[in-house]
Amino acid sequence: MGKIAYASVLREDFTQVRYDDLYQALATGALGRIEYCYAYGPELLPAATSTTSGMWRFRNLLPIGDLPITYPLAIGDTPLVAPYRLREATGIPDLWLKDETRTPTGSNKDRATALVLEHAMRNGVQTVSCASTGNVAASLAVGAAATGIAATIFVPAEVSEAKLKLMLLAGATVLKVREGYEAAFELSQEAARTFGWYDRNTGVNPLTLEAKKTVAFEIWEQLRRRVPDAVLIPVGDGPTLSAMVKGFRELVACGASDRLPRAIGVQAEGCQPVKRAWDTGKPVRSVRPETVADGIAVGAPISASLVLRDVRESGGGFVTVSDESMLQAIRTLAATGGILAEPAGAAAFAGLEPAMEAGLIDQDETIVVHVTGTGLKSPQYLQPKVPPIEINATLEEVEQAIESP
Amino acid sequence: MGKIAYASVLREDFTQVRYDDLYQALATGALGRIEYCYAYGPELLPAATSTTSGMWRFRNLLPIGDLPITYPLAIGDTPLVAPYRLREATGIPDLWLKDETRTPTGSNKDRATALVLEHAMRNGVQTVSCASTGNVAASLAVGAAATGIAATIFVPAEVSEAKLKLMLLAGATVLKVREGYEAAFELSQEAARTFGWYDRNTGVNPLTLEAKKTVAFEIWEQLRRRVPDAVLIPVGDGPTLSAMVKGFRELVACGASDRLPRAIGVQAEGCQPVKRAWDTGKPVRSVRPETVADGIAVGAPISASLVLRDVRESGGGFVTVSDESMLQAIRTLAATGGILAEPAGAAAFAGLEPAMEAGLIDQDETIVVHVTGTGLKSPQYLQPKVPPIEINATLEEVEQAIESP
Repeated sequence: MGKIAYASVLREDFTQVRYDDLYQALATGALGRIEYCYAYGPELLPAATSTTSGMWRFRNLLPIGDLPITYPLAIGDTPLVAPYRLREATGIPDLWLKDETRTPTGSNKDRATALVLEHAMRNGVQTVSCASTGNVAASLAVGAAATGIAATIFVPAEVSEAKLKLMLLAGATVLKVREGYEAAFELSQEAARTFGWYDRNTGVNPLTLEAKKTVAFEIWEQLRRRVPDAVLIPVGDGPTLSAMVKGFRELVACGASDRLPRAIGVQAEGCQPVKRAWDTGKPVRSVRPETVADGIAVGAPISASLVLRDVRESGGGFVTVSDESMLQAIRTLAATGGILAEPAGAAAFAGLEPAMEAGLIDQDETIVVHVTGTGLKSPQYLQPKVPPIEINATLEEVEQAIESP
Repeated sequence: MGKIAYASVLREDFTQVRYDDLYQALATGALGRIEYCYAYGPELLPAATSTTSGMWRFRNLLPIGDLPITYPLAIGDTPLVAPYRLREATGIPDLWLKDETRTPTGSNKDRATALVLEHAMRNGVQTVSCASTGNVAASLAVGAAATGIAATIFVPAEVSEAKLKLMLLAGATVLKVREGYEAAFELSQEAARTFGWYDRNTGVNPLTLEAKKTVAFEIWEQLRRRVPDAVLIPVGDGPTLSAMVKGFRELVACGASDRLPRAIGVQAEGCQPVKRAWDTGKPVRSVRPETVADGIAVGAPISASLVLRDVRESGGGFVTVSDESMLQAIRTLAATGGILAEPAGAAAFAGLEPAMEAGLIDQDETIVVHVTGTGLKSPQYLQPKVPPIEINATLEEVEQAIESP
């Protein structure tokens, strides 16, 4: 039977189309856009005994055909950590952290980059492009470098120095757009069309959603082939959440689960257009982001309607978290959970308490917190509260130091 | 038969001692010190079908007994990358990168930390301690935090700001010793004895060598159960190299290989006491380190004699690399290999060319390069050569920018 997809493509509905054919139609221009499609069929799940490692273990559920994978970096298989000190601290005995800081460039964007580049290599692409303020750009720059494809990256003038250095170090052409992020995003799409570049922009290239759904498959496998009760996910533009739900939808479609976990979207207080739309039932209105969490500082989310639908259909909800609570979550994750996160990466953990207060999750449930990116690329947000103690090299001074409160 | 070890303990030789008993004897003080011991027996290797993940897959070859492992962080299973662009660039078609940047705190020290802390938890340890300028300290601070054991860390006054922030963020007590690293190291040992802390110092605690040997087992598995011809390894104090050789020795002892790969030690030009001793045949003389590679800037290596023996018995050799060649290796690894490394982490790759020139390796051999630590903790050494291009948001300016040389 092969691979099957349900696809809602523009206004036409295709059912039982071969997944690869669908994406090939997109590549050749026979389809203008894929709105939503998903793979189903129990035969598409990897065998429990499969020893293929990483994201490609789920290749039957990806639009990638049967050719050998040539992308050189190891993607996927990130740890699902059972943080027992955090379990005690939060009173949630079945709390889990999906640690997406353990990737080539330290964020969940590396999954999307891998599938986009595998596809690009097969189609003889010379140049890939994107607009990004940080993680996507670093991910694409490093991934493209490893494949030999050129990368042109559009960043806003206020891009963080540390992330900029990574893109340049990896040899990408980095264009700093004076007019800011939204102009950079528009320009990157126009330039991709004009110069024939392959556009990796999340929310534009549907492969990004396909790749990022594999995180749900891994969670399911790591929980011994069951789905959690709820997943907390940071929401900027939203594809990270929609991809997670898509993965769980396909598990249901494949007969691996009889329900979706509730998806809890976490937005920054200073940038909560999706949460506002959820609360008011009105269309999303753009805002001017004011938050330390640059990874989710998206004021005009283009994927908002998908996210709202996915949260609703999963029976979930939204919460917001303050900058201070994200910075505190970074400290708690480091000092209790063993993970170094950036503000957006710590947002979902910061969302645990408000989600509990709002009745969206319960302490005796199986809860997964999505930690999406490392703090090592954002050293300015690693803010310890206690300084080092300076001493002379004597035991007396050691004793004094360790006895001081 | 259980676990078997050969042990040379001070002046006495124990053969066929149970591995766990040996370490238990050390813990209880019945043995003063373990100089060298190794596990052997084909039955100790994991079955090819074993699905246990991470470093603990090799638990039969570790002095850890049969109790469940409770250390909460995922350790081991780091990628062995087949970097095809680097293979082309170097002309070594069977070149591999063992990517130890993909660990909880971005360095190979996390293996040692994990075994030390697993042992510490079982023995009811309240406080662990070490002296370190960076990676060991960050690793111990984060690992100890995740287990709930207190960590006291001795650092020199000139410790790098980024690494210091990680230790503090993880909640360690950090003592900055005004007299510098060697004083900090002495003081940490004295303090550990005085206050009953558990000493994690590499080169002092033999568990660190045991844990770090697992990297050799993983390389062997990842090469489909064969050993490479040569491995390039950065050498500071030396345990990273000795642990790698120890792992391969045990594979020979277990009948999994009939030879050791040649171990090529790579030192910084500005800190090469072990290389000097190798070249001259004279005892190691301490030097004052002058190199950007803080991870291998050890002027008075206490494990030098073990390293010299291991390199000799493996049929390997030593090379040195300049600071500039390490900084260039960082750029090349990022722009061609997809890995972000710190200077010490890039040292082994920088050593490829001199090793080839010295006739220590050959282009048609299977060569593994050990990339020991991430560059994200040392942003000052990520030095791109090309700046970003600032533009206004028009296609014309994009076109000009991409056409500029």
